[in-house]
Amino acid sequence: MIDVEELRDCYTPTPSKIVLLVADGLGGLAHPDTGMSELETADIPNLDAMAQESACGLTTPVLPGVAPGSGPGHLALFGYDPLKHQIGRGALEALGIEVELEPGDVAARGNFCTIDDNGLLVDRRANRIPTELSAPICERLDRIEIAGVQVDVFPVQDYRFVLRLRASMGLSAAVTETDPQVTGVEPLLSRPLSPEGQKTAAAVNQFVMRAAQLLREEERANMLMLRGFAKMPSLPSMGSVYRLNPAAIAAYPMYRGLASVAGMKIIPTGRTFADEVETLRENWDRHDFFFIHYKPADAAGEDGDFDAKVRCLEDLDTFIPAIRDLNPDVLMVAGDHATPAIMAAHSWHPVPFMLHSKLTMGQGVRSFDEWACARGAIGSIPATSVMVLGLSHAGKMTKYGP
Amino acid sequence: MIDVEELRDCYTPTPSKIVLLVADGLGGLAHPDTGMSELETADIPNLDAMAQESACGLTTPVLPGVAPGSGPGHLALFGYDPLKHQIGRGALEALGIEVELEPGDVAARGNFCTIDDNGLLVDRRANRIPTELSAPICERLDRIEIAGVQVDVFPVQDYRFVLRLRASMGLSAAVTETDPQVTGVEPLLSRPLSPEGQKTAAAVNQFVMRAAQLLREEERANMLMLRGFAKMPSLPSMGSVYRLNPAAIAAYPMYRGLASVAGMKIIPTGRTFADEVETLRENWDRHDFFFIHYKPADAAGEDGDFDAKVRCLEDLDTFIPAIRDLNPDVLMVAGDHATPAIMAAHSWHPVPFMLHSKLTMGQGVRSFDEWACARGAIGSIPATSVMVLGLSHAGKMTKYGP
Repeated sequence: MIDVEELRDCYTPTPSKIVLLVADGLGGLAHPDTGMSELETADIPNLDAMAQESACGLTTPVLPGVAPGSGPGHLALFGYDPLKHQIGRGALEALGIEVELEPGDVAARGNFCTIDDNGLLVDRRANRIPTELSAPICERLDRIEIAGVQVDVFPVQDYRFVLRLRASMGLSAAVTETDPQVTGVEPLLSRPLSPEGQKTAAAVNQFVMRAAQLLREEERANMLMLRGFAKMPSLPSMGSVYRLNPAAIAAYPMYRGLASVAGMKIIPTGRTFADEVETLRENWDRHDFFFIHYKPADAAGEDGDFDAKVRCLEDLDTFIPAIRDLNPDVLMVAGDHATPAIMAAHSWHPVPFMLHSKLTMGQGVRSFDEWACARGAIGSIPATSVMVLGLSHAGKMTKYGP
Repeated sequence: MIDVEELRDCYTPTPSKIVLLVADGLGGLAHPDTGMSELETADIPNLDAMAQESACGLTTPVLPGVAPGSGPGHLALFGYDPLKHQIGRGALEALGIEVELEPGDVAARGNFCTIDDNGLLVDRRANRIPTELSAPICERLDRIEIAGVQVDVFPVQDYRFVLRLRASMGLSAAVTETDPQVTGVEPLLSRPLSPEGQKTAAAVNQFVMRAAQLLREEERANMLMLRGFAKMPSLPSMGSVYRLNPAAIAAYPMYRGLASVAGMKIIPTGRTFADEVETLRENWDRHDFFFIHYKPADAAGEDGDFDAKVRCLEDLDTFIPAIRDLNPDVLMVAGDHATPAIMAAHSWHPVPFMLHSKLTMGQGVRSFDEWACARGAIGSIPATSVMVLGLSHAGKMTKYGP
């Protein structure tokens, strides 16, 4: 599997334009009643027509059999080996609500939970307390002060929040989680995993103790647990490695966050994919690479709603002509992973992929779906090869070796 | 991607014979008027008939999306991971004119160029001065003497030459190039990239200064530039790793050079492919592995001449019966890379491949072209797997593991 910097000497700037359209959770599996996947079921004439003129294939997000989270799924499509470059849960959670992490900051994913009179866990999610109730609690926790460490608490949704710790000399994330993952026991203390983690573990335990006092009278959220302590990874920037001026257009904050970690410029946009496409059009002259993200298919797949996912794909299809009207030199349609509705979860299955340019060998793949793509000219490739393929088809790569 | 030594314990000698026919620049892309590639357009009944009895597939020379030079393209077919084993431009250029490089030697690719009265570059290729004019200049430069370093200058073609530096203790190639890659500026001085490079950089700069004086009165080639400083890499030999007695037959010196770097015996031959096939026949009893190289298809592709490339493939086809008449146990037809005429350049596209033996699974691929091969029994494989496939089909590999 290639990693972003390996072919550094080959990348060369040109005026040509690349669009990488990521349909989140694109791939699927056959519905047991019909034997057809979501893509096969959907009426997607524009994607099908494009597939007939494109080189098609399948991408493997991480490795065969490995279902990725959103982080590795996207990093791979951006050309980063997801086994080398990892984004911890706390950092990803912070990206998802656009909480800024500076280089020394440590973030954790927090859960409110319920303990009994003996301090033993009875509900690890505080009976899924709604955001209206949890947000004011976060505000109170945010006022906790610890000597030498700045503490910030940000509500996410329902029982979930983000804890951010900041210290003038920076902190280490090498500490253990406080979530025991089972009920009937007490939440754990955090322990340092290395000498560097001592200051963080001390701050975490102080914070938890103060929070426990503040929450004592709460009915449901009378305690909290922290996991996924992480810093923001420092990745080589796509702009400098690929010699691009890359931009990201995404309605959902987590994908803007992932793009910014990869060094893309984030273009503000609206809440819908129609807004995103309009943003793409308005900014067409300003960048040579655009990542544009379509979320709804994944959400429907995660809900296990086959018909809703079909409708989401049909909705995506209606925007293809507007994107093709911009006449990109390379237009790629990819997915960060499959989200088969019958699994109601991310899966490991290879994901349909197509690349449209003047220089593809592909002809005659009749439709854009799992089966047709498996017979495409590109074959089965690691998702980390997507960027290299896009760059080469756009004339942005010189020969490797003399 | 496999590298040559990884399966060392599996290789075993047998009397069976393998022919690896490399058609340089074999793969192509569809002509916009017909929708058919060079191979699809060509009338190649012998290759087509062979494909119907062979296992077919596509090879990826380096990685998806990466267009290789001749060096990595051939090394991969010989089983060397082209990302691990690199041949610098100077060394490849020396191979191309059969200039011998000993282990401590450093070679550079030289360009004659034109500078103005202020010493600024006005033509980086000296108005493409012809060989008749540049060869005598090389002779004069060859007489330059530098204390402690032997200097040799060899004409290549037109404005190109090879500089070879040799010193009793050996030299390092860790120095910068003198070609600024743009006009309007002065040629650069060479700088050491490490302490080991100091002696080389000093010799290079002395040579350039002396050459500048000698060239001062020339009309076009009044200066020179040097790039791609490199030593010859030391590769594990195919003979000892694969336990073969391998031979190479190639009309063009660069490919003889690449084969000799891989440890093959070079059999002298004539200037045409007919000569090469005759050489193969005459030496049939002396070796168990033959690399035979067909150059014209690549040259036509690089010229952007679709019809000429089609004719070259048709020409190649007429020699297939003579090779098959020798009854090799394994006959493989491969390409080092694609050279689509519509791109007039090496490209990254997967390259058609077929393997004929008694032990192939393939049947029913109707023709030898990009599309048919994409549907072949071998699938899409890295080019580095070609040797292992050839050896196993020839009975020259034992089981891996007990």
